[in-house]
Amino acid sequence: MTAVVVAGAGSIGSLLAAHLAQVADVTVLTRREEHAAALREQGLRVSGRGDFTARLGATADAGRLPPDVELVILACKSTDLEPLAARLEGTLADATVMTIQNGLGAEEIVRGYGERPLVSAVTFMSGVRHSDAHVEYELDTETWLGPFAATTSFEHAQEIEALLVESGLRARAFPDLRPAQWSKLIFNATVNTVAALTDLPHVGAFARVAEPTDLGLLVRDLMDEGKAVAAASGVELHEDPWEMNVHAVQRGETEAAAGAYAHVPSMLEDVRSHRATEVDFITGALVREAARASVPAPLHAAMYRLVKAREAAY
Amino acid sequence: MTAVVVAGAGSIGSLLAAHLAQVADVTVLTRREEHAAALREQGLRVSGRGDFTARLGATADAGRLPPDVELVILACKSTDLEPLAARLEGTLADATVMTIQNGLGAEEIVRGYGERPLVSAVTFMSGVRHSDAHVEYELDTETWLGPFAATTSFEHAQEIEALLVESGLRARAFPDLRPAQWSKLIFNATVNTVAALTDLPHVGAFARVAEPTDLGLLVRDLMDEGKAVAAASGVELHEDPWEMNVHAVQRGETEAAAGAYAHVPSMLEDVRSHRATEVDFITGALVREAARASVPAPLHAAMYRLVKAREAAY
Repeated sequence: MTAVVVAGAGSIGSLLAAHLAQVADVTVLTRREEHAAALREQGLRVSGRGDFTARLGATADAGRLPPDVELVILACKSTDLEPLAARLEGTLADATVMTIQNGLGAEEIVRGYGERPLVSAVTFMSGVRHSDAHVEYELDTETWLGPFAATTSFEHAQEIEALLVESGLRARAFPDLRPAQWSKLIFNATVNTVAALTDLPHVGAFARVAEPTDLGLLVRDLMDEGKAVAAASGVELHEDPWEMNVHAVQRGETEAAAGAYAHVPSMLEDVRSHRATEVDFITGALVREAARASVPAPLHAAMYRLVKAREAAY
Repeated sequence: MTAVVVAGAGSIGSLLAAHLAQVADVTVLTRREEHAAALREQGLRVSGRGDFTARLGATADAGRLPPDVELVILACKSTDLEPLAARLEGTLADATVMTIQNGLGAEEIVRGYGERPLVSAVTFMSGVRHSDAHVEYELDTETWLGPFAATTSFEHAQEIEALLVESGLRARAFPDLRPAQWSKLIFNATVNTVAALTDLPHVGAFARVAEPTDLGLLVRDLMDEGKAVAAASGVELHEDPWEMNVHAVQRGETEAAAGAYAHVPSMLEDVRSHRATEVDFITGALVREAARASVPAPLHAAMYRLVKAREAAY
């Protein structure tokens, strides 16, 4: 079986590790030793859209990872990526590294700690972490991946896609991930900051455009501004972020009617828990790209400054 | 002595009533009878920048106000003005009515319940209401007033100014209040919405413009947008709102260093208490004026939609 390391076991890392353990030899790298002990002793339970308990290896010591690892998925938040990449420097020499952080710039951070074959990924799935050994699978949407620059091939990304699909997750490989990455960047920069500032989960209001006060008008303006930045940066989007928003909201409303709760974007979770958000990697990246391409992005700049100030108010 | 009614005894109404009671025959009109009873029995205590207890009349029954009242100050929030004006319809026929609400449009609401001599006012003082019978006088800044349209004269506004000054408050009459009203409108639309969305009191960050992420850059952009709306509406501002912001913040920092706490704008107080905000009368008024004058106001429209969504999330 393929040997895989999943580094970081928040909700996304836990979902990846538990599913991949069905078809691969998975070791989870945690930050806390008691988290690793809980996973070793209890396994990792998946509820919600799944219902199983995965058996897997786990350690908080990067020096004790298996030597023959072929794939390392860095599943931490973008704010934790730099120290994680530093912990792995010089280890797992033969492994391909897959980044799956929100926003832009994860690959460059990893590259700063050694040349490796790199696969970029973005994921639309979501989960709720109930404990160190229990994650609820919420949205079973796709994970998109592709080779980063020329560090590896499209074929290699397709092998990882096959492994993810075999494990029960939805995945799709692209020869060039940038169009998909940017679609998600614009979606995320908008939905996350609006949620964080309004305290609203991603609900119907995000797509409402009937009255001049409706929130959907701001959401659409933010996405239009993001699309102009993408166009000026030479990126042709894979999907229209406004359509992604409308579909996500419609799906959410169907599920809310069926008793499921509304999806809380991670930046709103962070603000509610007074944690540092990923705004520098998401909206910050978009604002910096806008400056580089000399396109105005006053609304995203406003959201960026508001979220930074919201963090300063903790 | 001049007979005065102060209708509404939140922090501003309480400060006006207690001070005016030193030089006029004041009756407070409250919404709750127990509030009126507390004021009649205990008087109204002022602490902070003042230290006295005022004796005054109080009732929750508009039909029991003294018949010879010369001045009625409507000191409720703008969101409560319409029902208050309705309660007073047909009473106090000889009185001049002074509005002191945030934003624009208070005079038109009062006019909808009968023609009266109207004086417009805006106030920069602030207080913290500790109980029905105790208000702390926080900022002893000026109250500005002037005749509304041609319903009364500048001389009459000056008489009210003299009464306020004699009572120990700072006040200033203008032949035309619009330049001052608009300065405060732009100041308020910016500082209140930024505070409500970031959870920050009005602190130094509002004037910081050194780094691209600094909040002061958004504050200044919002004020520039507001100034363009004023110019297109033919209003020459009395004071530059950005300068007002810088001075208020500097004054606040001096006081914070001396142990006083940071000023919490009313919209932030409202959001923290999950109350309806005055955003429709403040930012909403500015956005409507921008549309009327065909000037773009995308940042204020964004703040308006965010605060409306924040209210919907309660």
